[in-house]
Amino acid sequence: MNAPAALHDDRLARVTLSRLTEPGDPRVSRLVPQLGAPRLLHLLLDDAEVSDLRTDAAARLLDVEPERELERAARLGIRFVVPGDAEWPARTADLARVANSQDRGGPPLGLWVRGPRRLDELGNSVAVVGSRSATTYGADVASEIAAVTARAGWGVVSGAAFGIDQAAHRGAAAVRGFTVAVLACGVDRAYPTAHAALLEHLATEGMVVSELPPGCSPTRLRFLSRNRVIAALTRGTVVVEAALRSGALSTANWASKISRPVLGVPGPVTSAQSQGVHGLLRTGAATLVTCGAEVLEELGAVGEHLAELPRGPERRRDRLSSRQQQVLEAVPVASPAGVESVARAAGIGLLEVSTLLAQLQALELVEQLPRGWRLAEGARA
Amino acid sequence: MNAPAALHDDRLARVTLSRLTEPGDPRVSRLVPQLGAPRLLHLLLDDAEVSDLRTDAAARLLDVEPERELERAARLGIRFVVPGDAEWPARTADLARVANSQDRGGPPLGLWVRGPRRLDELGNSVAVVGSRSATTYGADVASEIAAVTARAGWGVVSGAAFGIDQAAHRGAAAVRGFTVAVLACGVDRAYPTAHAALLEHLATEGMVVSELPPGCSPTRLRFLSRNRVIAALTRGTVVVEAALRSGALSTANWASKISRPVLGVPGPVTSAQSQGVHGLLRTGAATLVTCGAEVLEELGAVGEHLAELPRGPERRRDRLSSRQQQVLEAVPVASPAGVESVARAAGIGLLEVSTLLAQLQALELVEQLPRGWRLAEGARA
Repeated sequence: MNAPAALHDDRLARVTLSRLTEPGDPRVSRLVPQLGAPRLLHLLLDDAEVSDLRTDAAARLLDVEPERELERAARLGIRFVVPGDAEWPARTADLARVANSQDRGGPPLGLWVRGPRRLDELGNSVAVVGSRSATTYGADVASEIAAVTARAGWGVVSGAAFGIDQAAHRGAAAVRGFTVAVLACGVDRAYPTAHAALLEHLATEGMVVSELPPGCSPTRLRFLSRNRVIAALTRGTVVVEAALRSGALSTANWASKISRPVLGVPGPVTSAQSQGVHGLLRTGAATLVTCGAEVLEELGAVGEHLAELPRGPERRRDRLSSRQQQVLEAVPVASPAGVESVARAAGIGLLEVSTLLAQLQALELVEQLPRGWRLAEGARA
Repeated sequence: MNAPAALHDDRLARVTLSRLTEPGDPRVSRLVPQLGAPRLLHLLLDDAEVSDLRTDAAARLLDVEPERELERAARLGIRFVVPGDAEWPARTADLARVANSQDRGGPPLGLWVRGPRRLDELGNSVAVVGSRSATTYGADVASEIAAVTARAGWGVVSGAAFGIDQAAHRGAAAVRGFTVAVLACGVDRAYPTAHAALLEHLATEGMVVSELPPGCSPTRLRFLSRNRVIAALTRGTVVVEAALRSGALSTANWASKISRPVLGVPGPVTSAQSQGVHGLLRTGAATLVTCGAEVLEELGAVGEHLAELPRGPERRRDRLSSRQQQVLEAVPVASPAGVESVARAAGIGLLEVSTLLAQLQALELVEQLPRGWRLAEGARA
């Protein structure tokens, strides 16, 4: 069998397997790398060795016709990308390291994609995730982070939920950036239905992605396993707002497991929507970021994006000589003091202090009142 | 000379030295441990070896009468506590490690104290510091932290400024806790004058402390060296709000230098008053805390105060069998699915799934509609 034919067989087997099992099924994750998808599928129907998997699979209707499934998908503008394809995101292989029966980890069998962009364009990309019931504060910060990273040419990846997901897509779209939704249902479905227009927009300009075949409904388990795909597709995950048991924390957790940076945006300690993020920051599971520039700095190649260090306004006092500073620091803040008193406090002789005070007065840093010298209003802050 | 007489001589010499030099003078910090305060004072007037210090000291009026100074102070209810005294806070000795000409570090020569409490009661104590121009958010959090730590029997130490300082004292006072202001001027002075009543309250119930002799005015330099005393008196420093160049960051910096924990309260990334704290958290210079209980956990002896781990409300789903959970996770969130579809998604046989769905329905976790099963409203969040 030549290579294209083998790839085709593999693709068909993966279609069928993704119909028969749930995303991240630990047995599939273990056996596909060992046997290959076509052989696993073959054994599934005969072999006692994988009887455990067979029992569950048997509960599913065994009427999958992968060729027709791919054709139907193609008519909807949907392609099924598998590991042999040029655009396959190699980075998802990291999930193989954490596949175990508890976690439902493991790389996806393939990814169903709708949209003009390619999965391998996600080399520089960031997951922006968080609470569905975001505050306006959280939504604003998510939009800013998405806009800044998208403007830098990075892909923005999120879910399609209300709140932070929506704000992230909106921020990236506002700068005509590359933005991607990963769904817990088929890419032909709109969940939540209120986001049908958003998803249509992404399918036209960016990408809508899922490991579930077209037509599938979202379930809790599918949301949780979807989160590992978001973490695995990107260079790192930013959690903008998350309450204590938010699903966004599961995305952060997956990112940690595959050694991708987790970043967290702080918020008021009085906001329940920031409690989950504060937990990540407090335990060191996440690094604090406050804006898109800092996200790029944390995730970019070293030195590639250096966020400008936030600094206070330059003060006139920074430009003083050390002698001038010494006198300035000895001048009372409020009730005026005579020149002798300032000289004493500064530890500098009387004559020199008079000269220095006059210079500081010219710079509007000190003022002379009838009772003596004190700091000028503008120099007190 | 007997011990009490030596202590008396030492005390008088320290009074005079603290009149002649500024707080934390690096030369004093270096020479007092070598020579003792009385001998340094003696040399100061004769010896060429310390001529550098003499020149500056000469600029001060040499009319200090330490005995009368102590008497005058005593009449105002002020005592001058020095290292030989029982209540001397031994912990301040850590400052000797960081004395150098740049920093004006070094332990204070002594501490002028007004109030009924003792310095050695600060064994368990926390510095709560921050911006003068605090937001109401910052002030509320500072009060909460001060109230919770004070209620646990800890001393709360701060300055006497507007904003966070004031809020910390208010929080501690509200629970009749032990609260201490460290000033950058004499303890007989009220700066800012608007805080005269606050300082009077602290002098009656807690303590007002300064290394500057009574009558001294505040200067910038004195504020900065005052911050090292706040850091050194306490087990750790909490920065509640601080803009980028806030003086509160200098307190944090001193605490770091003498290896005391620095804690930081996050806030909205859009608030300038939290930018300085976020800087500390981002670089790892501070540990994130969100409440008084977490402050006690960070600063208390190991296991002494364990903050209750914040957790979400317990969910009904936590008490399900693994089989029930497996089915629950396979039930669609919104559009209903028939029992066959759920069985397929769950990988469990039809009959068992029917039973499990009925159990989940009894727990109000799923609902049955004409078209099939879906999650009940309360189980979707």
